[in-house]
Amino acid sequence: MKNSNAILLIHCPDRPGLIASVTEFICSYGGNIIELEQHVDPKDKIFFMRVEWDLKDFSIPRNEISEYFKKNYGENLSMNFKLYFNDYVPKMAICVSKMSHCLFDILGRYTAGEWKVQIPIIISNHEDLRWVADKFGIEYHVFKMNSENKTSIEAKQKELLREKEIDFIVLARYMQILTDDFILSYPNKIINIHHSFLPAFVGAKPYHAAFERGVKLIGATSHYVTEELDAGPIIEQDITRISHKDCVQDLVRKGQDLEKIVLSHAIEHHINRKVLVYKNKTVLFS
Amino acid sequence: MKNSNAILLIHCPDRPGLIASVTEFICSYGGNIIELEQHVDPKDKIFFMRVEWDLKDFSIPRNEISEYFKKNYGENLSMNFKLYFNDYVPKMAICVSKMSHCLFDILGRYTAGEWKVQIPIIISNHEDLRWVADKFGIEYHVFKMNSENKTSIEAKQKELLREKEIDFIVLARYMQILTDDFILSYPNKIINIHHSFLPAFVGAKPYHAAFERGVKLIGATSHYVTEELDAGPIIEQDITRISHKDCVQDLVRKGQDLEKIVLSHAIEHHINRKVLVYKNKTVLFS
Amino acid sequence: MKNSNAILLIHCPDRPGLIASVTEFICSYGGNIIELEQHVDPKDKIFFMRVEWDLKDFSIPRNEISEYFKKNYGENLSMNFKLYFNDYVPKMAICVSKMSHCLFDILGRYTAGEWKVQIPIIISNHEDLRWVADKFGIEYHVFKMNSENKTSIEAKQKELLREKEIDFIVLARYMQILTDDFILSYPNKIINIHHSFLPAFVGAKPYHAAFERGVKLIGATSHYVTEELDAGPIIEQDITRISHKDCVQDLVRKGQDLEKIVLSHAIEHHINRKVLVYKNKTVLFS
Amino acid sequence: MKNSNAILLIHCPDRPGLIASVTEFICSYGGNIIELEQHVDPKDKIFFMRVEWDLKDFSIPRNEISEYFKKNYGENLSMNFKLYFNDYVPKMAICVSKMSHCLFDILGRYTAGEWKVQIPIIISNHEDLRWVADKFGIEYHVFKMNSENKTSIEAKQKELLREKEIDFIVLARYMQILTDDFILSYPNKIINIHHSFLPAFVGAKPYHAAFERGVKLIGATSHYVTEELDAGPIIEQDITRISHKDCVQDLVRKGQDLEKIVLSHAIEHHINRKVLVYKNKTVLFS
Repeated sequence: MKNSNAILLIHCPDRPGLIASVTEFICSYGGNIIELEQHVDPKDKIFFMRVEWDLKDFSIPRNEISEYFKKNYGENLSMNFKLYFNDYVPKMAICVSKMSHCLFDILGRYTAGEWKVQIPIIISNHEDLRWVADKFGIEYHVFKMNSENKTSIEAKQKELLREKEIDFIVLARYMQILTDDFILSYPNKIINIHHSFLPAFVGAKPYHAAFERGVKLIGATSHYVTEELDAGPIIEQDITRISHKDCVQDLVRKGQDLEKIVLSHAIEHHINRKVLVYKNKTVLFS
Repeated sequence: MKNSNAILLIHCPDRPGLIASVTEFICSYGGNIIELEQHVDPKDKIFFMRVEWDLKDFSIPRNEISEYFKKNYGENLSMNFKLYFNDYVPKMAICVSKMSHCLFDILGRYTAGEWKVQIPIIISNHEDLRWVADKFGIEYHVFKMNSENKTSIEAKQKELLREKEIDFIVLARYMQILTDDFILSYPNKIINIHHSFLPAFVGAKPYHAAFERGVKLIGATSHYVTEELDAGPIIEQDITRISHKDCVQDLVRKGQDLEKIVLSHAIEHHINRKVLVYKNKTVLFS
Repeated sequence: MKNSNAILLIHCPDRPGLIASVTEFICSYGGNIIELEQHVDPKDKIFFMRVEWDLKDFSIPRNEISEYFKKNYGENLSMNFKLYFNDYVPKMAICVSKMSHCLFDILGRYTAGEWKVQIPIIISNHEDLRWVADKFGIEYHVFKMNSENKTSIEAKQKELLREKEIDFIVLARYMQILTDDFILSYPNKIINIHHSFLPAFVGAKPYHAAFERGVKLIGATSHYVTEELDAGPIIEQDITRISHKDCVQDLVRKGQDLEKIVLSHAIEHHINRKVLVYKNKTVLFS
Repeated sequence: MKNSNAILLIHCPDRPGLIASVTEFICSYGGNIIELEQHVDPKDKIFFMRVEWDLKDFSIPRNEISEYFKKNYGENLSMNFKLYFNDYVPKMAICVSKMSHCLFDILGRYTAGEWKVQIPIIISNHEDLRWVADKFGIEYHVFKMNSENKTSIEAKQKELLREKEIDFIVLARYMQILTDDFILSYPNKIINIHHSFLPAFVGAKPYHAAFERGVKLIGATSHYVTEELDAGPIIEQDITRISHKDCVQDLVRKGQDLEKIVLSHAIEHHINRKVLVYKNKTVLFS
């Protein structure tokens, strides 16, 4: 990770020669490709690619790469692309309510240096987890939100997020439904964890619903937040086995282990620029 | 398995002393308990038990056990119970349509002697799998069913099932919706495999729906058939991981491995009298 | 959990009437059985049982139950038994080295009140994780151990453990090999996490060995520590899928998620008195 | 699958421009890349690639591609490569002993047309499974092998394999140890299923060993056969959960479900040219 790498995420209509064009672009300017992964949606004929290359001997200055690529390749090939650099450390805000398991998992990884990320703030509608934020020396902001003040509170939250230059937001069991306006301000930049195997058990109290239905497995789903509740592009899912012996409280307890791991894996994919969203689904590069 | 064992499946309102009563009954007549498993639903206060005992030195004749237990215990304690013997070989009918993967898995186990079961007949609405039945020397009955003749055809099927003394029916990707009347004739005796992680993707074409939603795991669910479609008591479920690279056909192919294993495990639980249905859920003894 | 329950863990040579004897004992003195699970090893003919009952109306005083049971049942039936009470809060010591992932997972659960346990001390051979202990307000004791001072250091550790009345010890990636003497002082009371799917990759650097062998799954194993390295009774295991793309560092990172969850589950089983050790294997009640 | 595709599997020392060279080769002659996957071993600095392209508009005749690629690219870049065509149907021989579960799984898929493969012969040291081969209309050859006649028998087997133009061999629980000579005649072309999570429980009776050790998971491993027993490159592995309630026979039964699925998945990877062997490990393209 000492090297500076550029990362291109591309999608465009499929046609012959796309991989050759992009690799030729990188190689002809002295870039060494570290990793390349591509995929073609055979139904919609869409081409997807993630390519990462070492900038050491790359002759185009990094602040000109995007412009250059756009002019010479992107436009000809109708490419939709995003350019990232692996030495940029994104800023992440965490939103929590009263449960601490996801927060502890995130902060444990954070303080161990597992992720290339900064966490300037934790946002909550309750005071309950301030002590955790304090332990880890992170600012904790409480916004008492209700159905009436949602718009004005969200305006204040957005101001704070802008001020702290937050790149993306993690809802670590936040238990609040965001307004469309807020969601649209952070497209594919708000990561939620839902405590069910979506699309089963959308909405509130999924463990109660799972118990009632008598399922033999429970799940957790991490997804980007979109305007439709619990219906955004899925990043990661996992399940665990339960039995008739487990009451709702057991499901809650067992599910928490799933939730925290699934959410943290989704965050990791996002930080590493491994996720490309297309038509409400994710292409997850490995 | 050379011994003859009796198996009692019991459920009743919970109260102190239930286990002691039942175990004392068995022991006082010379039965040696091989296995006992109990469970109390803490919400509904219902007691569930499965107990299996060796009949070798048991002094009540096997055809009087049920009557005796009912009079002396069952009635006092409001017990709902079923008595089985492990040396009885149940008769199972298989219903198929055109896909062979579940059928092969079942017949492979059957011919290897894995299950204590007899399979006198295979029923289908198509000729496609007759050759498989022929290979294994099992009668294959085709009933061409459509929306108009369903009632009369089902009447004929029921006659055949009665004649062959069928104890339970396995829908091995049968692709037909049974009438309520038929279902009610075989309560908790029709085992279906649904190719999704229920309750997600109820109904037709679950793999297409899973692909559209962009899930990262697909599942299969085996359940008893009830009048509400895909909503009966779940016996077994499992999942497998997929990725954006998998098209619908890949999901179908990967899902088939799940379907056949999940269905066969459910059949095995049923044959071994490990399943107790209560309030549209299963208690699955281990 | 408001009720006081007694828990009996029993093993003895199998013979008819064992369940009836124990359940009759509990019922005849007014105890209401909450949960009973039994198992017979068919090869060695050993009977195992865990039974938990409510003490509310139980007429034997709790400090006399053990004596009473021993005299009237245990001795007759050659029973080996242990009696616990669910309202006793055991004291647990954690031993760590430099890695924090297991420690954070344990302390996250601890502060969230997930476990009925007390953690008075953390022991280490390094200063590295003192800040974590400080965050959570737990005493942190450093013992600089080397091959020469092991005996004298362990003597001091044992003194500390006695003084703090520690019931059991968790090695949360401790990276030290304990002496036989120390191990024998805490029989089936030292829980270790080994970062492989034992018995594969015993000893040091299992992730390196897994990488070299080219396995497609990596695992983690939590077990009680015995005199033979990594060979004690296994409490819990789990695995995760890897690929040729994963280098040793990826295995380490992915393995840490396994390690912490597997270790915490093993601790939970131990706290809940669900583990019975017999002949270097565990009977794990559900 | 109607199109004819070429598949190149490449490995060579890593250097800048490898992907660009290969993709340029394909594109400049009119080939449309369907799928490309590459990987660099960061330790050994080895480059691996699998690329598949449509031959429809490819201007080099298929019987000249290999020669052409070798001369113009392979030699310059020290590439080790293999060229396959997706419309070639490989011939596979199955070796069995007495257990039928893997055989049924393979033949079920085969007759359902799941794999692009031909199975001209089944080889065994016992008559037991002849009836299965007969059912499916496949030649069944029995070679009574013992420690004394192994060399001469294997010579006959090799003659048969040559005569039937067998491309690769599947040991579907064959229970015979092959001589080095035989193994070296089919390098990376003999696929075995071992009934444990290798490298745990190498050799005979792995389920007995797993039972003795008290593991909580059992596994199955499919690998290419090399001269060292159970130590060849691993293609696929999976596990299932067991408990103290499972005796050796239960492990055998539960393990069979693993064995057949793991073996069939490994066969599928092999048929689809997704496996590249390097230094006793596999690169498994997705």
